[in-house]
Amino acid sequence: MSKPACADEPCPNALGALGARYRQVRAQSERLCQPLALEDYGVQSMADVSPPKWHLAHVSWFFEAFLLRPFLAGYRALDERYDHLFNSYYQSHGTPFPRAQRGVLSRPTVAQVYRYREHVDQSMAALLARPPAAQAAEILRRVELGLQHEQQHQELLLMDIKHILAQNPMLPAYRDDLDVAAAQPAVPLRWQRYPGGIGPVGHDEAGFAFDCERPRHRVYVEDYQLASRPVSNAEYAEFIADGGYGRSDCWLADGWELIQRAAWQAPLYWRREDGGWSEMTLGGLRELDPQAPVCHLSYYEAEAFAAWAGARLPSEAEWELAAQNAPVAGNFVEQDRLQPMAAPAPAREQGLGQLFGDVWEWTGSAYRPYPGFRALAGSLGEYNGKFMSGQMVLRGGCCATPQAHVRSSYRNFFYPAMRWQFSGLRLAREA
Amino acid sequence: MSKPACADEPCPNALGALGARYRQVRAQSERLCQPLALEDYGVQSMADVSPPKWHLAHVSWFFEAFLLRPFLAGYRALDERYDHLFNSYYQSHGTPFPRAQRGVLSRPTVAQVYRYREHVDQSMAALLARPPAAQAAEILRRVELGLQHEQQHQELLLMDIKHILAQNPMLPAYRDDLDVAAAQPAVPLRWQRYPGGIGPVGHDEAGFAFDCERPRHRVYVEDYQLASRPVSNAEYAEFIADGGYGRSDCWLADGWELIQRAAWQAPLYWRREDGGWSEMTLGGLRELDPQAPVCHLSYYEAEAFAAWAGARLPSEAEWELAAQNAPVAGNFVEQDRLQPMAAPAPAREQGLGQLFGDVWEWTGSAYRPYPGFRALAGSLGEYNGKFMSGQMVLRGGCCATPQAHVRSSYRNFFYPAMRWQFSGLRLAREA
Amino acid sequence: MSKPACADEPCPNALGALGARYRQVRAQSERLCQPLALEDYGVQSMADVSPPKWHLAHVSWFFEAFLLRPFLAGYRALDERYDHLFNSYYQSHGTPFPRAQRGVLSRPTVAQVYRYREHVDQSMAALLARPPAAQAAEILRRVELGLQHEQQHQELLLMDIKHILAQNPMLPAYRDDLDVAAAQPAVPLRWQRYPGGIGPVGHDEAGFAFDCERPRHRVYVEDYQLASRPVSNAEYAEFIADGGYGRSDCWLADGWELIQRAAWQAPLYWRREDGGWSEMTLGGLRELDPQAPVCHLSYYEAEAFAAWAGARLPSEAEWELAAQNAPVAGNFVEQDRLQPMAAPAPAREQGLGQLFGDVWEWTGSAYRPYPGFRALAGSLGEYNGKFMSGQMVLRGGCCATPQAHVRSSYRNFFYPAMRWQFSGLRLAREA
Amino acid sequence: MSKPACADEPCPNALGALGARYRQVRAQSERLCQPLALEDYGVQSMADVSPPKWHLAHVSWFFEAFLLRPFLAGYRALDERYDHLFNSYYQSHGTPFPRAQRGVLSRPTVAQVYRYREHVDQSMAALLARPPAAQAAEILRRVELGLQHEQQHQELLLMDIKHILAQNPMLPAYRDDLDVAAAQPAVPLRWQRYPGGIGPVGHDEAGFAFDCERPRHRVYVEDYQLASRPVSNAEYAEFIADGGYGRSDCWLADGWELIQRAAWQAPLYWRREDGGWSEMTLGGLRELDPQAPVCHLSYYEAEAFAAWAGARLPSEAEWELAAQNAPVAGNFVEQDRLQPMAAPAPAREQGLGQLFGDVWEWTGSAYRPYPGFRALAGSLGEYNGKFMSGQMVLRGGCCATPQAHVRSSYRNFFYPAMRWQFSGLRLAREA
Repeated sequence: MSKPACADEPCPNALGALGARYRQVRAQSERLCQPLALEDYGVQSMADVSPPKWHLAHVSWFFEAFLLRPFLAGYRALDERYDHLFNSYYQSHGTPFPRAQRGVLSRPTVAQVYRYREHVDQSMAALLARPPAAQAAEILRRVELGLQHEQQHQELLLMDIKHILAQNPMLPAYRDDLDVAAAQPAVPLRWQRYPGGIGPVGHDEAGFAFDCERPRHRVYVEDYQLASRPVSNAEYAEFIADGGYGRSDCWLADGWELIQRAAWQAPLYWRREDGGWSEMTLGGLRELDPQAPVCHLSYYEAEAFAAWAGARLPSEAEWELAAQNAPVAGNFVEQDRLQPMAAPAPAREQGLGQLFGDVWEWTGSAYRPYPGFRALAGSLGEYNGKFMSGQMVLRGGCCATPQAHVRSSYRNFFYPAMRWQFSGLRLAREA
Repeated sequence: MSKPACADEPCPNALGALGARYRQVRAQSERLCQPLALEDYGVQSMADVSPPKWHLAHVSWFFEAFLLRPFLAGYRALDERYDHLFNSYYQSHGTPFPRAQRGVLSRPTVAQVYRYREHVDQSMAALLARPPAAQAAEILRRVELGLQHEQQHQELLLMDIKHILAQNPMLPAYRDDLDVAAAQPAVPLRWQRYPGGIGPVGHDEAGFAFDCERPRHRVYVEDYQLASRPVSNAEYAEFIADGGYGRSDCWLADGWELIQRAAWQAPLYWRREDGGWSEMTLGGLRELDPQAPVCHLSYYEAEAFAAWAGARLPSEAEWELAAQNAPVAGNFVEQDRLQPMAAPAPAREQGLGQLFGDVWEWTGSAYRPYPGFRALAGSLGEYNGKFMSGQMVLRGGCCATPQAHVRSSYRNFFYPAMRWQFSGLRLAREA
Repeated sequence: MSKPACADEPCPNALGALGARYRQVRAQSERLCQPLALEDYGVQSMADVSPPKWHLAHVSWFFEAFLLRPFLAGYRALDERYDHLFNSYYQSHGTPFPRAQRGVLSRPTVAQVYRYREHVDQSMAALLARPPAAQAAEILRRVELGLQHEQQHQELLLMDIKHILAQNPMLPAYRDDLDVAAAQPAVPLRWQRYPGGIGPVGHDEAGFAFDCERPRHRVYVEDYQLASRPVSNAEYAEFIADGGYGRSDCWLADGWELIQRAAWQAPLYWRREDGGWSEMTLGGLRELDPQAPVCHLSYYEAEAFAAWAGARLPSEAEWELAAQNAPVAGNFVEQDRLQPMAAPAPAREQGLGQLFGDVWEWTGSAYRPYPGFRALAGSLGEYNGKFMSGQMVLRGGCCATPQAHVRSSYRNFFYPAMRWQFSGLRLAREA
Repeated sequence: MSKPACADEPCPNALGALGARYRQVRAQSERLCQPLALEDYGVQSMADVSPPKWHLAHVSWFFEAFLLRPFLAGYRALDERYDHLFNSYYQSHGTPFPRAQRGVLSRPTVAQVYRYREHVDQSMAALLARPPAAQAAEILRRVELGLQHEQQHQELLLMDIKHILAQNPMLPAYRDDLDVAAAQPAVPLRWQRYPGGIGPVGHDEAGFAFDCERPRHRVYVEDYQLASRPVSNAEYAEFIADGGYGRSDCWLADGWELIQRAAWQAPLYWRREDGGWSEMTLGGLRELDPQAPVCHLSYYEAEAFAAWAGARLPSEAEWELAAQNAPVAGNFVEQDRLQPMAAPAPAREQGLGQLFGDVWEWTGSAYRPYPGFRALAGSLGEYNGKFMSGQMVLRGGCCATPQAHVRSSYRNFFYPAMRWQFSGLRLAREA
């Protein structure tokens, strides 16, 4: 039997498709920044946030550091100093510029950063036009990783822009042209049962996945139930009205300590107005939509709500097993709402609504390596593995995630006190 | 068939045995404090440490708050103000006195604390002599919990005393009469294989267990291997000599950040002397025993060592499944060494050495509730459940643990940065 | 003309008197500690506070370091390690043990510290019995300094004991046998005028004075007025009732920032009770005496009160010029009240009341060197000079000061945020 | 006798001159910002620094808040929200936006801030064209204050821009066209004697002065000497080479603690390069000019150098009395060097060189009110008075100060740890 055409080196078609995808993903990052004032590009509103300009540069640095420098013969950097400035956290690639100081870098300017992007793009085009045969497979793998990486930063861009603008007492909108969802009737929460047993968890090797989604392995779960939809703003407001932020019995000890110290009384962007709750969004301040999924919760708040509701968070295995056959569809960045929305009443009375998109769903699982986990080789091994302590897994993507970026095995992760990401929750309970 | 004699109410024998155990456990706490100078009783050397005096009072408060106040008719407290002072963290029982301020409480004096213990003991004797029938079962359950609780604080007492004395540049010994182990030859590390499959994890209901060990449930594990003994001081010193504390690729990101900031270069109590390493122990400063298990590691250090050694930490399920049939024997507090010891070369070339005692073994599992976990009712629900975030599980007990206190299902837990507990590690790897 | 008998070497009488004074001062430190529980000796309730035990040892270390080691032939230290432990801040004498960690030192025990005192006292007796002739003058100067130093620590002991006991929710009294002053009628505040001109400020060389009181120099002051007595509790309560802690216009910017951050609403030891104000004292919790001088104010609070009252604080020159001819008499530690007291209505309608004793009076002068200031030679040069930044001068002594220790040129100094010392204020204004 | 023409209301000439000056001063602020990239305008590199954009807006707010709102009939703000955003610290004018958050305000944009300036300028022109007669005198006083205030911020702009750019590892220059001074021969330091006595200190009422320079009053000083020029870089480098940053005996205790904690080894912008010292300047990184005055010292460093040199800092009275008859000439912002320069060898061998311009000279005087000090009325009373604690006085202006802004009575003030201002020192000693 003849050898398949593209076994060892990429077929021209694959290269062409990847080049097109490269251009599309890169253009999308810049499109997301179009509504910004130039002044917005440089702000770092807290240590966890990066200036939009920094994101634009860093994702380019990723291609430069892991593709152009090692693989493009004769590559010349636009500015060698960027290698330090835009290294995020790769200790084995040099000493990264201190994260909390990113907002101090007024230079390179925004124009210079766009020039940097152009320089990288032209060089990447050259590399993809004629990848050295011996390294072509590795190059394609890394290009794919670089694009997935840039998509992650597209979501970070929206999170960070939202946070930056929300610190400004004038509450400027990122965009004035975002559609506001029409009011929806409340959809009663339904419990969906899942039988226990051994199931496969993790990515099955077809198509891209991050190292942390691998390897696929077996997990035993007991019978369980999942709520038919995420917790809504109205339900969370009820928790608050019931004194939820003052009831120590609902909270993990670390969470209780945090909300005392930080004086939290509601989700991150909620503001109590005369007649009720408003919410800062990428479209500016809006009245809270009661049926939309609650968003911008820390893990502690998600756990506290679940405890108050007599339920719990699902494990990531429970979530993934329930989601494996569901289509990846929902309110993603492509819907251009940039805000979780109330789902219309479901056509049929079964299955899970809003599994994908709208809000990342906190699970009760710590972000730890799967059995047999192997980090990528070299500096790229720092991509995921070294963050596997202290963080919790979230699943399903959100209204700021590119649809093609997410899948049922996708593991997002944040520290339990963080809530500037689009994070909500779905209840679970024993069957 | 006739009803067993003691189904609903405690038989006199059970009561008598419990009373005897009560007196034995209570006496042991005081015995542990006998070597202290009166001045040692009040010191809080860091926020995580409590003054020995506070431990002695708090464990008494536990009996007072959860047994004497609810169940002993006509109980009169020795001093009502102690109810606030010695409440550790039970928010639903009142406002606990701030943890970090415990060292400020010069009063009640040590003598008054011993008087408090006596008062509680006499009242407990009265309660156990004639427990109200309707509540007898609950009373016995709580007495057992109170004794287990006091045993936990016995270990904390030794940890805290060690930490207090180690801050003193004079390095006073807690005791001068502790035996130092004879030097042992190095025992090569052997890998023991375990087949994967579904196994039972958690306590099976016979005898006491904490709520967090329950319920017994099924867990699927892949094939795995465990090291035949814990990592030794000599092996850890090799990691240091190899530049381990300067190799970012071995460390979790949080750990790397911590050791930079805190300038850690070795386990907590190690000191570099001219000719090598010494170690502060409860018997004072000693030369490091190369074959003894390395001790007083943070989780980050345990992870870094494992990465350096090309291995990993076991999951708690892997550990428990391997330990379920092993006898609970080893170097416990009863051996009166109060320091991990090198094991003699094993008689036969199989099985795992030093599973129990010597050092708590960090696992790679976050301390989270088991499927179906139910916290105890009422304030006692705060005992374990609210700490189930941010902490990692350790298994097996240590040289400061009462032997009867530990079992294969026992889950100890600490934050990953903590290392004043007697904590070491055992390597694991895929089969 | 014949040489005076004691020009170059101390006369036996002088030596004898000094020896007697040595014993008296040293005994007084121990007398002040007699009411303590042994447990009180080791507590450090904030970084500025030292454990009473530490005070007792440090003042002995002072004699050892600056007299016994350099001047007593063959002196053998009781424990060489104390030289590090009880060095307060003399960098040129070695590396002082970290101040904020003093509360961690459970050893040496209290008994060992008393033994250390005894050892030092016996050695000092030997030194004073036969001081080497060539160094006798320097020895006598240093003994006098050591005694003055110990008197300063006697006041610190009372301040620190008060602070330690006040952190305890049980509010234990240092002593139960302190007289409470009888109620006094309110004494109207009168303004006393002083003419401007050049006046002498600083010590005139007769008798002991600290280096910072020297040299006497000329200062020009404008005409000014001083209030006839310190501000009373009743007057300060009026300031509070008038919203004083919420009126930014009364406060220095640093003070305003501090009271927001620390949520201060009243002097340090005041507590609002149902019917009014109570105050923690060395005699336990007492009802506030309205006519007694207000006490335990920070400099910021003193300034804010003065601004609210349309007045200002006196400069230290104004204070000293007005006090130079006044007798050093008042409510000192010898009165054994240990609390500021209301003065009886003055016999004649002129002069200033309560200049000395009761409360240290904040002045508006920064603690800076006088023109021509020379620090002592050697390590003793660190005694005062290096603290001459960021602190403000207080004058007059307080109810915890030994009467013989203070004089009109005496300069006490604290950071403006500190208020655990017995500090109040007297108003001044332009003439 | 006829009434003088301009007694109660401003003469048209005076108004015209003030209007011209208004335009000139306002234009200068914008001229200083011309070299900036738009991205530089928004950065806050530490809490003490304000973004250049914020300075431009705040000085306009000052005219709006204190002139347009109270005095211009029918004034309409461009944006009412700016009243909160650009209030620096006037608590009695509302709640200022938190200082440390100024860097987060990406909006208003730079263009909007310039529009705001234009709006204020047009309104001010209207007010100055026809000031209401009854308030004209107050208006002119406040316009003058507003212009002086803007000049202070012009210097702050240069300080802050320098700090912002210096945090960037690329060390961008603010301007590429600044002249570098030619090398000068070393000028030996000469001591100039001044006789003691009573002298007048403070402003004598002719022309503008800040409230803190008033009232003129008498001060007695002893005989003293001042160095003929500021301390040079070469001299300061000698102090460093002599181990100055490691000699505790030279330092105030607070300074010693600070340099340990912050690991300071040299003045703020010095960098040790292979062949010696370089220095970050507004013209980029330059080799250190050995004969130029040392700059960017904290008070602690100035004190330490003086102690090492066997001298001291002058008091502000000593400085002012020596400077009262000296012409206000030197290296100011108008020289357009923006960096202290070595003075050429003086023509005649007497007098003091570089009293004005080059570097602000730390004095040994705390910034406290003069006898008889009265703050301005109303909110403007917050201008200076409330900062009179914890700060030290500096005299003489610097290379970033407008020449017309400074005078011999001018009191600048900073906290002793600050050193991003252009601060150096001149030695003094007893005569």
